[in-house]
Amino acid sequence: MNIAVDAMGGDYAPQAAVLGAIEAALELGIKVTLVGSGDVIQKELASHPSAGCVSIFHCSEKIQMDEAPLKALRQKKDSSIMVAFDLVKRGDADAVVSAGNSGATLASAVLALGKIEGVERPAIAGVFPVESGYVLLMDVGANVDCRPTHLFQFGAMAHVFAESCLGMKNPSIGLLSIGEEGAKGNELVRLARLLLEQSRMNFIGNVEGRDIFAGDVSIIICDGFVGNVALKLSEGMAEAMTGWLKSELKNSLAGKAALLLGRRSFENFKRKLNYEEYGGAPLLGINGVGIICHGKSSASAIKNAIRLAVQYVNNRLMDNMVRQLPLWLKNQQAMGGHNN
Amino acid sequence: MNIAVDAMGGDYAPQAAVLGAIEAALELGIKVTLVGSGDVIQKELASHPSAGCVSIFHCSEKIQMDEAPLKALRQKKDSSIMVAFDLVKRGDADAVVSAGNSGATLASAVLALGKIEGVERPAIAGVFPVESGYVLLMDVGANVDCRPTHLFQFGAMAHVFAESCLGMKNPSIGLLSIGEEGAKGNELVRLARLLLEQSRMNFIGNVEGRDIFAGDVSIIICDGFVGNVALKLSEGMAEAMTGWLKSELKNSLAGKAALLLGRRSFENFKRKLNYEEYGGAPLLGINGVGIICHGKSSASAIKNAIRLAVQYVNNRLMDNMVRQLPLWLKNQQAMGGHNN
Repeated sequence: MNIAVDAMGGDYAPQAAVLGAIEAALELGIKVTLVGSGDVIQKELASHPSAGCVSIFHCSEKIQMDEAPLKALRQKKDSSIMVAFDLVKRGDADAVVSAGNSGATLASAVLALGKIEGVERPAIAGVFPVESGYVLLMDVGANVDCRPTHLFQFGAMAHVFAESCLGMKNPSIGLLSIGEEGAKGNELVRLARLLLEQSRMNFIGNVEGRDIFAGDVSIIICDGFVGNVALKLSEGMAEAMTGWLKSELKNSLAGKAALLLGRRSFENFKRKLNYEEYGGAPLLGINGVGIICHGKSSASAIKNAIRLAVQYVNNRLMDNMVRQLPLWLKNQQAMGGHNN
Repeated sequence: MNIAVDAMGGDYAPQAAVLGAIEAALELGIKVTLVGSGDVIQKELASHPSAGCVSIFHCSEKIQMDEAPLKALRQKKDSSIMVAFDLVKRGDADAVVSAGNSGATLASAVLALGKIEGVERPAIAGVFPVESGYVLLMDVGANVDCRPTHLFQFGAMAHVFAESCLGMKNPSIGLLSIGEEGAKGNELVRLARLLLEQSRMNFIGNVEGRDIFAGDVSIIICDGFVGNVALKLSEGMAEAMTGWLKSELKNSLAGKAALLLGRRSFENFKRKLNYEEYGGAPLLGINGVGIICHGKSSASAIKNAIRLAVQYVNNRLMDNMVRQLPLWLKNQQAMGGHNN
């Protein structure tokens, strides 16, 4: 098992990527290849006693967070993210982990590995913590303008992923809307609902924003614009709420004492809300395994993302996708859904 | 001052509406008219010693929460929500408060009072609590499929509302997207941005989901689908988080002690997150004052919504809208924005 890590991607690159890779290699006993500028990575490794447990694959370029993905990939043929996916293509690595430009990560994956048969738009599955485990929200940012058939396909991809990698059996699927009735929602959602209703997936109908954290549904489908707003809103709200609670408690002596006594509980609570704990979001619909991490990922988040990548490879995610997905999609095409 | 309250609207109608109306009339020293079935309201009032402080306006029908708004209004000519806005039209009431079907509330307002000159789509401004006060999110559900010019108009309406009723001076306006750069976002947002950039409003560019709770921008514009998802997500997340924190604390003796000691702080914290505290969302773009309350509004939420309605009437919201809004909209039409 070898995981290719984009050493140049993310706000805290290369430090976070390098440290996370070392920790993962030591903890999981796997090979990790850091892809990026050899000099820069070498310098970073110099201060680590366990530097020998990871390898370096040199490339000369990197794509910045704010670059337009396709233009950047055209101009930078030797970028770390593209080279990382090329390693998977050549069979030299089993998966890619990147905290860099997510649009460029998606585009590199498609260019290097191609899409799975029948998939129109690969997408990113966000993993939300809930009381009972996790809820998948898909797409969380890869596709901002969608057609109904794309939403249907997100459902099929999330279904196969959840069964393969999250141990879910026939997971329930909801369509994110603004009311439970079929007539509610925008045009995209109303049409997507018709496709989902005709499928053999465990589609339970429309769900609302409040259902994301209620944990009563396993998979929630939406376009990448709405999903990204929801993801970022959750992050911002979790941060704001923990801040408010803290300053509220610090306002009184009793509150300060509560803060001290409840310290451990507060830490557990914060950890539950921390996206770093899960590690990253799987890129689904490509011929391979890719994990997109938050741009602000720490070393610990990178390590957790590498652990996920290993887990997904062990779960034979790609094989399951390649085998099962076309069946779900064919089912839809037979209904004429590919025209939507 | 007389506020017309839709006594038949909301999950806890008529109890919550009747009790909230009585409390508001007593506390604020104003007239409140309960609109709905005379018998039903009378029966509810019978148990209250202060029943005399409110009046009843009888009508024979009510619109259920899940009815299609326009169809329901066509079939039920004497519905409580329509009759309430008719009272405003005739000059017998100054504003309407309703926790009922929000689509029917919006449609009744437009039918009875009409739209302000130049407004294409009235919308609902959601009020989010933040550390520094409030952030307006608009639209939160009235318009699910929007054109760029609608988003521009939401900005203009929110601008006039924030200056009139929230004491803000030239409030900053952000456009909800999934990245700060102008090229980011879906097609709707990219085109709306061009219109906003050319306006004389204090437009600061794109903002992201996480900015809703950061409090660095006063007004955030989005279509009603995205806004409603964001609103419901926030509610659901606030509920889930307070639940998680509580069960986390109850897990240990120290945590239980912390819960006891910090009781007051936790209550303040919960109150900050409770939509009932603000009371309701103003309906903007109509020739009058209307407040849409959460369907699950308690008596206290209804009371707070009535207080808001009184405040907006005192702030001369409608006069300010009628006078100022056409100027902002004309500015946009001169740019050719009405074609978008």
